[in-house]
Amino acid sequence: MDRSAEFRRWKAQCLSKADPSRKGSVDEDVVELVQLLNGREQFFTTSSCAGRIILLDRGINGSEVQKQNCCWLLVTHKPCVKDDVIVALKKANGDAILKFEPLVLHVQCRQLQDAQILAVRSTHGLEVPLTHKGKLMVTEEYINFLIKIANQKMEENKKRIERFYNCLQHALEKETISMTSYPKEKIKEKNNSSCTHKKKRNPEKACGKYITEGNNKELEIDDHDDPGISVTIFPEDY
Amino acid sequence: MDRSAEFRRWKAQCLSKADPSRKGSVDEDVVELVQLLNGREQFFTTSSCAGRIILLDRGINGSEVQKQNCCWLLVTHKPCVKDDVIVALKKANGDAILKFEPLVLHVQCRQLQDAQILAVRSTHGLEVPLTHKGKLMVTEEYINFLIKIANQKMEENKKRIERFYNCLQHALEKETISMTSYPKEKIKEKNNSSCTHKKKRNPEKACGKYITEGNNKELEIDDHDDPGISVTIFPEDY
Repeated sequence: MDRSAEFRRWKAQCLSKADPSRKGSVDEDVVELVQLLNGREQFFTTSSCAGRIILLDRGINGSEVQKQNCCWLLVTHKPCVKDDVIVALKKANGDAILKFEPLVLHVQCRQLQDAQILAVRSTHGLEVPLTHKGKLMVTEEYINFLIKIANQKMEENKKRIERFYNCLQHALEKETISMTSYPKEKIKEKNNSSCTHKKKRNPEKACGKYITEGNNKELEIDDHDDPGISVTIFPEDY
Repeated sequence: MDRSAEFRRWKAQCLSKADPSRKGSVDEDVVELVQLLNGREQFFTTSSCAGRIILLDRGINGSEVQKQNCCWLLVTHKPCVKDDVIVALKKANGDAILKFEPLVLHVQCRQLQDAQILAVRSTHGLEVPLTHKGKLMVTEEYINFLIKIANQKMEENKKRIERFYNCLQHALEKETISMTSYPKEKIKEKNNSSCTHKKKRNPEKACGKYITEGNNKELEIDDHDDPGISVTIFPEDY
């Protein structure tokens, strides 16, 4: 069996299985994105999270950074309510931490060239210790303040997913064109799409073009002090 | 000029420039790592940060997640002292945030195959809002608690850099062997090195082996709820 056929078989096998997440389905906010990728023969998604607010309780035995006995007090993929956090925090008997985690997407690719096509990263997070050995270290007013920030990040994350979807769709369309009819010179021109917003933030980045020059599209949603959601696209004819 | 010669010229040019960071030199804790990479003809580093604790003040005009007018109140690459944070916080007139940021390393690679060799990521962070419109939202006791956590993370980060250095050195040595004398079958066997600790954390990851199977070494330092520092090595004969 050739690699393409083997990949198709493996993709079908993985996608036919029940969703292995706790809630057993893809998060609503990434359904379209997951479908877009799974609709392309060279990709399939193996796991995803649209973004979430979580409250973790880390056991007091795990005093090091690498904690054992981690317990989830609260998880939500929607904006969260102060009272839910207050109630959940009462169950903490170790070091509870409130986190906001943005979009996570794991994508399997047919071959090395395809694997270049997707690199999604985001550091648009929040990680705040709230209790120590079960004792609340902050005020209710602070928790309220924090939840507003977490919910704002959740909103912003949702907007980024939408922008990411649009840019990816645009890029995949262009890639298809590049594989079928356009002469190479045309493709390179077309790569300067409206989605390309990669900024040179510092002098050393200005020279970071060797491998990618003329060969990739970088789709980056601007942010001032973190990379946000970032995607690098290499056409298949690399 | 062929690509190899062009890369050598570009590497020499970048490395001969003054360090573009604020302090004008590579952080002490990553000097060896940077030297290890720059000593290999197919790589050079364009920027690095060993890890740092920073206190940012975000202007009150930037009420959205994407903030403007960001001001650094404090930056340290060493463990930090409570009094310094308290003093720095007094200068905040917007939304001040304490962050711990682990190792960051940007590496330029000669060609696409080489670029597969390094993917370093870490989410071993901390991001805690402390003031709102200049008003402190937490107690001094909480700040003290937070600084202890940040300093622990700094310590752990330093250990990870050491482990990462050792694993990378080991992998690069093996790669050199694979390019010179070993038959392919031997190399594949040898890839099961003592640095390979990649855990299958969930069922869907168990099938994530298509592209990499037998072709890469994954060097991952275990952590229970974040990936820590993680490196993927593809031999050049991929």
